[in-house]
Amino acid sequence: MDKWMEAAIDEAKKGLDEGGIPIGSVLVYQDRIIGRGHNRRIQKGSCILHGEMDALENAGRQPAAVYRECTLYTTLSPCPMCSGAILLYGIPRIVIGENETFMGSEALLRQHEVALTVLQDPVCIGLMRRFIQQNPDIWQEDIGV
Amino acid sequence: MDKWMEAAIDEAKKGLDEGGIPIGSVLVYQDRIIGRGHNRRIQKGSCILHGEMDALENAGRQPAAVYRECTLYTTLSPCPMCSGAILLYGIPRIVIGENETFMGSEALLRQHEVALTVLQDPVCIGLMRRFIQQNPDIWQEDIGV
Repeated sequence: MDKWMEAAIDEAKKGLDEGGIPIGSVLVYQDRIIGRGHNRRIQKGSCILHGEMDALENAGRQPAAVYRECTLYTTLSPCPMCSGAILLYGIPRIVIGENETFMGSEALLRQHEVALTVLQDPVCIGLMRRFIQQNPDIWQEDIGV
Repeated sequence: MDKWMEAAIDEAKKGLDEGGIPIGSVLVYQDRIIGRGHNRRIQKGSCILHGEMDALENAGRQPAAVYRECTLYTTLSPCPMCSGAILLYGIPRIVIGENETFMGSEALLRQHEVALTVLQDPVCIGLMRRFIQQNPDIWQEDIGV
């Protein structure tokens, strides 16, 4: 398994251990992680800290030239908000753990020539399947349903 | 002038007074503001707290039924990230102060049947014109250029 996806899964598991939604993400620039994060809806009462947004936020303010050489790893297909952030900053490559439990805005990202790799990783799928089964209401809130 | 846009402009001015980028936003539900905010890139070293995101965050966790009856007021045309957040939560109406100094993802929002009203308000335009002229680098960073 890709070491960066492993780091994103570690973030997802950290979120789960905190009682949160198990989605994690890391932002990689020149072969090192510059931002890591996980969904913090429950932990921080936040509606904007999805895993990808948390990783971007924790990377701090970066110039466009940095984002343009980054790859974002996320355990789940990115929702419209996170996809919008990817487009805003021009992140060119996204590695996605799975899109079986939720299909994000992959079509929009592809339209804008973002390169997507979907791993359909069984650990990522298992984490979300269990969480959604046990917490359907929180999950629906997280995706605006 | 619309009282909610006035509240969004007040937020933009508050941001400017703090040394920040003058973009403000309020989220209105059943004729009252449930979240207000302004761009906090400089103040918090944040790459995700655009005005609209800050207003959403300050509204706290809301069920989909609330967002579906909200109107979001923002002094500037919403960027891809903020537009994605609007789509994620299904906010049906957006009132935009101006889109002369920056054109956000209005076409995408319209594709998804979000109702947009653009005021081309001279106060909103003036705030951004001056800021961009005096701080071109910070502005470019904020929009990923």
